[in-house]
Formats: sequence, C-alpha cells, structure tokens
Amino acid sequence: MEKEDMKELLELVDNCKSVILGSVDGQGYPNAKAMQKIVHEGILCFYFSTFTSAIRTRQYLSNPKSCLYFFRSEGKVAGLMLTGDMEVLTDAGTKQKFWEDGWKVYYPLGVTDPDYCILKFTARSGNYNCGPKRLLFDI
Amino acid sequence: MEKEDMKELLELVDNCKSVILGSVDGQGYPNAKAMQKIVHEGILCFYFSTFTSAIRTRQYLSNPKSCLYFFRSEGKVAGLMLTGDMEVLTDAGTKQKFWEDGWKVYYPLGVTDPDYCILKFTARSGNYNCGPKRLLFDI
Repeated sequence: MEKEDMKELLELVDNCKSVILGSVDGQGYPNAKAMQKIVHEGILCFYFSTFTSAIRTRQYLSNPKSCLYFFRSEGKVAGLMLTGDMEVLTDAGTKQKFWEDGWKVYYPLGVTDPDYCILKFTARSGNYNCGPKRLLFDI
Repeated sequence: MEKEDMKELLELVDNCKSVILGSVDGQGYPNAKAMQKIVHEGILCFYFSTFTSAIRTRQYLSNPKSCLYFFRSEGKVAGLMLTGDMEVLTDAGTKQKFWEDGWKVYYPLGVTDPDYCILKFTARSGNYNCGPKRLLFDI
C-alpha cells in the first residue's frame, strides 16, 4: 500500500471514537456492536476491554471470525472494514497490562474480576472506501 | 414490547442517516458497510438501493443472513441491532416502485439498469441498548 493511503487509513482509525465490531452468532447471523478501542498497533492489531459474560465474548469463543468497521459520515464520507480473528484473553498479565482504574465502575472486583477480559483482533484483509477511491488489500 | 420502548427505537432508526449492514462472506467472516436506508416499515422491513454487482449483493445472494445496526454516539448513546434475512429484488415492478431520478448518476441506464437492484431486509430479532436499558426481543 502507498504511504499516503496508509496515512489516510490511520487518520480515519484514530479519529473514530467508536468502532463497529462484527461477529457471527450461533445461528450463522452476522452481529454488530459499537465499542471503544483502547489500544491499537497500526491497522494490524486492536484491543478492547469487555465483559467475559457478554454475548459477543461468547460468540468469539466459539467462532473467532470477526470484522472491525470504521466509518466517517460527516465531511468526506469514508469507511474501512478489516476482517480478521478475535482472541479472548483472560490471563493475568494481559488483564494487568491494559487495566485502567476508572474501569472499577464496570468490573467491581478490579483487575482480577473474572468478568473482565481483553479482546484482541488481528486483521487479515481490508476494504477501504473514500469517494471514488477504493482499496482492497491483504495484511 | 411497551409502546414507549417502540417509540424510542423508532426515533433512533429515524434519526440515523446511515445504517450499518452486516453480511457473511464466502469464508464465513462477518462483513460490515454503511448504507442509507430509503424506505422502512417500522422495524420489520427496510429497503436499500444498491449495485447488483456489489460485493455485498453477491454475498446476500449466496447467504441471506444479515443484520442492521443503528447507532447514536452523541448525547445518550444507544444501539439497535436487528438480525434478519436480506432479499435481492431485481424485478421491474420493485425497481420502478423505489426509483428516484437523481439515481441516474449511479445507474446511467435508469430504472432498467441491470446494475440497479433493491435489497429488502426482514427482521427476525432485535437487541437494543440505551444506558442501563437493554431489550432482547423477537419480531
């Protein structure tokens, strides 16, 4: 990918407060939910904190296939879809690495709360649209 | 569902300019794309115009399982996911019914352009979140 294109993609990613997570449910239907990203490494890896008991977490445990969708509806409309696989990380080291104290509101037991886990998305391909520009790419 | 809840859901739907469409690709990965709804009947049926040659149209032809996701990120954050099935309608009557003259930009041959088709989504279940409120329902 051209350097300028990657810069444009990363700007979209960085400016999106929310990202839509896609999953596949037990009946084979696509599901979608908005979440806030916490940390990402370029467009390759994205981390999210969530409830171990959440519907989506259970879906990823039985089917890791997922997608992320970044969308800008104001100004120059643009969309970036990344497809890839989602891991559910529950080990103490990972949970500690990403923990923020403000999260006690969600996870009363703190960093060791069994209902707190980290989702790690690793991208395999992408589809970017912005005006007439369209990029399909593998990662 | 309570009347007040349905009113709240419909307000979210009506105020969303864009809706995220979910599909499942040939490798079983969920896909997502923002589109503009053109007509809807409550939360049961939604219609979209699109290209017959689009990736998503081909996905729905081989796997009609889909979802719609309506999301409000400003003010009172809310999300509504509807899962259901997507039909690809290419008959002359349906194409005429929804046609708008401004679409000649996209479909140069007009209403009979073979690359113009209508997607019809029929919902089967829903998942609504707004603050502490959460509704899971069948349709």
